[in-house]
Amino acid sequence: MNKLHTLILAGLICATSLLAQQNANNIQLELEQKAQRKNILIPDIDGYQTLKGDFHIHTVFSDGLVWPTVRVKECWMEGLDVMAITDHLEYRPHKNFMTEGHNHPYNLAVSEAQKHNIIFVKAAEITRSMPPGHLNALFINDADSLNQKNVDDVFESVKEQKALMLWNHPGWKAQQRDTCLVYEVHEKLIKEGLVQGMEVMNYTEWYPVVLQWCIDYKLAVFANSDIHGISGYTYDVQKGHRPMTLLFAKDRSSDGVREAIESARTIAWFDQQLAGPEDLIKELFDASVNLKSAFYTDDKYRYMELSNESDIKFSFINETTSNGAPEKFELQPRKTIVIRVNKDAESFKVKVDNCHTGMFKNLQLNLM
Amino acid sequence: MNKLHTLILAGLICATSLLAQQNANNIQLELEQKAQRKNILIPDIDGYQTLKGDFHIHTVFSDGLVWPTVRVKECWMEGLDVMAITDHLEYRPHKNFMTEGHNHPYNLAVSEAQKHNIIFVKAAEITRSMPPGHLNALFINDADSLNQKNVDDVFESVKEQKALMLWNHPGWKAQQRDTCLVYEVHEKLIKEGLVQGMEVMNYTEWYPVVLQWCIDYKLAVFANSDIHGISGYTYDVQKGHRPMTLLFAKDRSSDGVREAIESARTIAWFDQQLAGPEDLIKELFDASVNLKSAFYTDDKYRYMELSNESDIKFSFINETTSNGAPEKFELQPRKTIVIRVNKDAESFKVKVDNCHTGMFKNLQLNLM
Amino acid sequence: MNKLHTLILAGLICATSLLAQQNANNIQLELEQKAQRKNILIPDIDGYQTLKGDFHIHTVFSDGLVWPTVRVKECWMEGLDVMAITDHLEYRPHKNFMTEGHNHPYNLAVSEAQKHNIIFVKAAEITRSMPPGHLNALFINDADSLNQKNVDDVFESVKEQKALMLWNHPGWKAQQRDTCLVYEVHEKLIKEGLVQGMEVMNYTEWYPVVLQWCIDYKLAVFANSDIHGISGYTYDVQKGHRPMTLLFAKDRSSDGVREAIESARTIAWFDQQLAGPEDLIKELFDASVNLKSAFYTDDKYRYMELSNESDIKFSFINETTSNGAPEKFELQPRKTIVIRVNKDAESFKVKVDNCHTGMFKNLQLNLM
Amino acid sequence: MNKLHTLILAGLICATSLLAQQNANNIQLELEQKAQRKNILIPDIDGYQTLKGDFHIHTVFSDGLVWPTVRVKECWMEGLDVMAITDHLEYRPHKNFMTEGHNHPYNLAVSEAQKHNIIFVKAAEITRSMPPGHLNALFINDADSLNQKNVDDVFESVKEQKALMLWNHPGWKAQQRDTCLVYEVHEKLIKEGLVQGMEVMNYTEWYPVVLQWCIDYKLAVFANSDIHGISGYTYDVQKGHRPMTLLFAKDRSSDGVREAIESARTIAWFDQQLAGPEDLIKELFDASVNLKSAFYTDDKYRYMELSNESDIKFSFINETTSNGAPEKFELQPRKTIVIRVNKDAESFKVKVDNCHTGMFKNLQLNLM
Repeated sequence: MNKLHTLILAGLICATSLLAQQNANNIQLELEQKAQRKNILIPDIDGYQTLKGDFHIHTVFSDGLVWPTVRVKECWMEGLDVMAITDHLEYRPHKNFMTEGHNHPYNLAVSEAQKHNIIFVKAAEITRSMPPGHLNALFINDADSLNQKNVDDVFESVKEQKALMLWNHPGWKAQQRDTCLVYEVHEKLIKEGLVQGMEVMNYTEWYPVVLQWCIDYKLAVFANSDIHGISGYTYDVQKGHRPMTLLFAKDRSSDGVREAIESARTIAWFDQQLAGPEDLIKELFDASVNLKSAFYTDDKYRYMELSNESDIKFSFINETTSNGAPEKFELQPRKTIVIRVNKDAESFKVKVDNCHTGMFKNLQLNLM
Repeated sequence: MNKLHTLILAGLICATSLLAQQNANNIQLELEQKAQRKNILIPDIDGYQTLKGDFHIHTVFSDGLVWPTVRVKECWMEGLDVMAITDHLEYRPHKNFMTEGHNHPYNLAVSEAQKHNIIFVKAAEITRSMPPGHLNALFINDADSLNQKNVDDVFESVKEQKALMLWNHPGWKAQQRDTCLVYEVHEKLIKEGLVQGMEVMNYTEWYPVVLQWCIDYKLAVFANSDIHGISGYTYDVQKGHRPMTLLFAKDRSSDGVREAIESARTIAWFDQQLAGPEDLIKELFDASVNLKSAFYTDDKYRYMELSNESDIKFSFINETTSNGAPEKFELQPRKTIVIRVNKDAESFKVKVDNCHTGMFKNLQLNLM
Repeated sequence: MNKLHTLILAGLICATSLLAQQNANNIQLELEQKAQRKNILIPDIDGYQTLKGDFHIHTVFSDGLVWPTVRVKECWMEGLDVMAITDHLEYRPHKNFMTEGHNHPYNLAVSEAQKHNIIFVKAAEITRSMPPGHLNALFINDADSLNQKNVDDVFESVKEQKALMLWNHPGWKAQQRDTCLVYEVHEKLIKEGLVQGMEVMNYTEWYPVVLQWCIDYKLAVFANSDIHGISGYTYDVQKGHRPMTLLFAKDRSSDGVREAIESARTIAWFDQQLAGPEDLIKELFDASVNLKSAFYTDDKYRYMELSNESDIKFSFINETTSNGAPEKFELQPRKTIVIRVNKDAESFKVKVDNCHTGMFKNLQLNLM
Repeated sequence: MNKLHTLILAGLICATSLLAQQNANNIQLELEQKAQRKNILIPDIDGYQTLKGDFHIHTVFSDGLVWPTVRVKECWMEGLDVMAITDHLEYRPHKNFMTEGHNHPYNLAVSEAQKHNIIFVKAAEITRSMPPGHLNALFINDADSLNQKNVDDVFESVKEQKALMLWNHPGWKAQQRDTCLVYEVHEKLIKEGLVQGMEVMNYTEWYPVVLQWCIDYKLAVFANSDIHGISGYTYDVQKGHRPMTLLFAKDRSSDGVREAIESARTIAWFDQQLAGPEDLIKELFDASVNLKSAFYTDDKYRYMELSNESDIKFSFINETTSNGAPEKFELQPRKTIVIRVNKDAESFKVKVDNCHTGMFKNLQLNLM
């Protein structure tokens, strides 16, 4: 047997034994999607960092359908910075065989949050008939102490824990069928600084009147998912986004989040709608959209470029009749459009249809 | 005031009050994806209906991360016909505070399955060190009776319940690091008819040698997800599919499923690979792919059309040298390709690279 | 030097020279999408094969933007069976430097069609002011003979060539701004059998009144793309579809297509809308949707399953008040839905919102 | 008849006439995808603006398949800043019936480029057998003057027009089957400053050796599409990208582009691979990836975060054995990953597998 034969034989032996081992044991397939976090592009505004939060989330420890750690992974993958698990205190359908206390969901998930660089706000949902309805207590120390018969005792405990509250879905028909009122108890809680915000949007519902209340009372607006099922089966988390609360914070920390809420520096973002105070919406629009008002002109038209550096979609309604621009146009996330206006047009007023600054009010701009 | 004014005024009042009501209460958004079940296109073969099953699924009642009803909804959405929840009998990390018995996951989910037209097989996972390793008991009546110290008593209970067993992930490195053996106990269980199948594929691993065992012992092959997390976060359920077991059943019923398993009429389908007995794979290929061997001829070439009516991808390796066809080609799900061969070619032998009919064997065909 | 060293050295030399060659020359990347034809799932109906056609397509030889062969490849990839290139006879903006005759686009593309198993109908667009407006002459032999000053001579040539005509976009505002009339000339052409169909849909416009005319005159309905740009930039050809004409043909041939048109056995399909005669729409619905009217019943509800085996979307409006089913529901392509109705419901009348059977008429069904 | 009846009647008349008009005329559907330009996220580097260019594009005026204006629209939609149409001077298959000169494609498209804010470089492809092979003349004034028999006269005309040249696909097998050489003529053209760059990548081929030549000769690297068909049918322009040349320019202008080429400040980007000089690749990586080296530590691990702010994918191979990090990992566009390393790990050397800095060289980094 010469050297070449030796070489070939050695190769064959080697290949065969490798193959045998592979077949005998296992072959790892590339089936699993390696977890990657989506970077949501929403720019910072002057002096503040823009954080994304969801402050209303359920698990199997109340009437949700998943384990608390799943909630952290979902929020991380979807690009959120801050989250709160808010299981119902008073509604625990499985409590006869799930016997742990109200702090358990937090305790199970907190290290998962730390390992994913998520700000994890300890919380619980106070779940009463109206008034006062449902309120999320945020920044609490102990959920068990909030589990008291008398709702005034609950509020007392919130105060003692130096926590704050958010009024959930004030326009929910199950609790306000034919009315939509701020009750005396809410006014009192607002005055005392215990209620610092309201959900202008919850799950799939949005309440324009609540936006107006928040502006009038100078409270933080919230959009929260109130998720019970699986986020990716409820929202299109690849091309769309879950409802979330944008916070303009001094830094990316629990204290930063709290200070932003207490200063009402938030915008609700849901289903590509923005709702919040006019000044914040305007600042966020300016930081997101880059306008070149006439990069080219020919004998009939000037050509304008609007470039969207964010993941927010903007929808425009042209309010200047006959300037040659289309009546309606859209600027998709991370896209640029060219709009042609008549050369002699002097004005280009638009209403930004998906930017709500009050109950009957939208952001208005002059693009010229 | 004339009639026209009245008309306009009435209209305005009407519109305003409608608007007020909408804003005061709530506006339902089209956020939620309405649940729709995907119809997986895999044709029936002669005399049998092709069912899709997953026989290895976990919930929060062992070490899974979701509620049992979620599993039914996932299987329904992903197009499965039959499923089994198989929580571990011996491994329940939350049992100190989740105190229900082993039948509970089944009981919680059974009506969800009925409402979704899903065949729901009662089951549990026997979870032992090797041998015998992990086995799923299927078609059981009572999971609690299977929870016994001595594994022989467990097998006795399986027999008494007229259940059958499936050997899970025989090539799993955690239990067979340097070997891949059928132990005596498995041979005995096979001989007694208690083990009727094996997982040739589990989660992200596949074991070609186990395919060979199934063919040699005439046992049913299985591909199962062994899912612990959320299906849609683990597999690409829109464009891809979870691992599943194709069953060729006399009818779409629990009995039909059982008879197909006991007759070893199954194919494992995972990550667009098929593994199973050659005759079944060939029948499924023929039912899926429509071949027009020469729909057009010019002076140099004949043009062949391969049309795939299924959701299975097929990958071909051309084994006839120099017939003018490409060395490799793919036929995507629900697509048609045109292949050009030399006019005078006499043969077109292909190996179907993703159709495994043995440890070192693939489906082979002559396309001419 | 011992054998092992020889082996290693040989291996290194081999590897290095291979690498050098690869780097010195070129490395082929898998960038190009290998062309695959989409199989559109639209079932056959009793006695007929369902073909998909587009009979209105432009190229650079009139005012289109692509070469004729591109049109064949587009139609093939999008799953069409039959197509006609219909460049304008009277409008050729580049004719001063593109000097070939009117048969040239057909001649350039015909072998591409043969190699892709596409039925390629020779055609041209007669492009006049209204009346008669624009008409596509189909099944012609010679386009140059149609290029005549006097439109009556053109019609004479159509007749001599045993061709037939299709009236394009009768409701196009550029030609019928404030009216929508059938002119005398059209009535004459219809009576003579020269006009055998009309576009109820063209590009992005649809004309319900033209559907009514087709039904009244017993003419074939058409939906055509009238494509000038690139199909994939105009329509979402992956998830959606270009406008197309469904033909119910005795066989898949040019004669089969012609006979189906002359027998008015067509349905227009555009933007997931169907428009055509009630009997054909009903047959196509029945062939597409599989209904299980009560696969499960509990004490309150019966559960119905609707399974869509086609690529057509169906939208339903529930016209039976208070039977417990939703007011509106959708059945996506290749999906299944479960609808819950009250156990004692006796009727379940629906209007199929996207199936148009007349100007003010939709398909109506009782699902019970 | 009272007022209410009048009101209802008026409403009905109004609604009916509106409906009639709609049906009689046309209903505009939302079929057409409104054109939006994709913003490719590739950050600027210190002192320079990052522009994206394609300098090798064909139209129907040589052997391409689309009209010149389509090329502008494609480049605009795909996010390019600069482009050149480079039809062959010597290969015009349709010249017998397409009789315009070599400047015509530029002339037809230039205003389309201006209206879309695209830098449009006048160019043509010199198409000879090897040597010198194919070269693109860029920044020319007159393409007709380049159409000369003797190639030296062509180079003379390039010099006179103060144009520059790019050597196309030097490793193309059709012209260098068994060799891959820089010929004397190329050395001469490089020395004279007439050739300022080479394609390290063309269409679907890439040539590592040409990258090495560019680095050795200090020439600009190029990746160009050499597109003949339709871009969106060749490349996945939604999720992927066409091959393109990244230019680090002093400003976004034709002069800026030229100065960047002449200074060899370019990187080739193709199929998620980067190829170019090490310093530029390193600067671009640093500008794209944000590293938090230990945002959290527990008793066993430190947790690192890599956040990708660009549309470039990065693939890493871990070259530090046993630091606890995975052997391979990927950072997708606009995603963040968390990597866990052993608490006491002192080094984390990685090779960035898709960043080529020489023929056998990749970017290497220490992430710690």
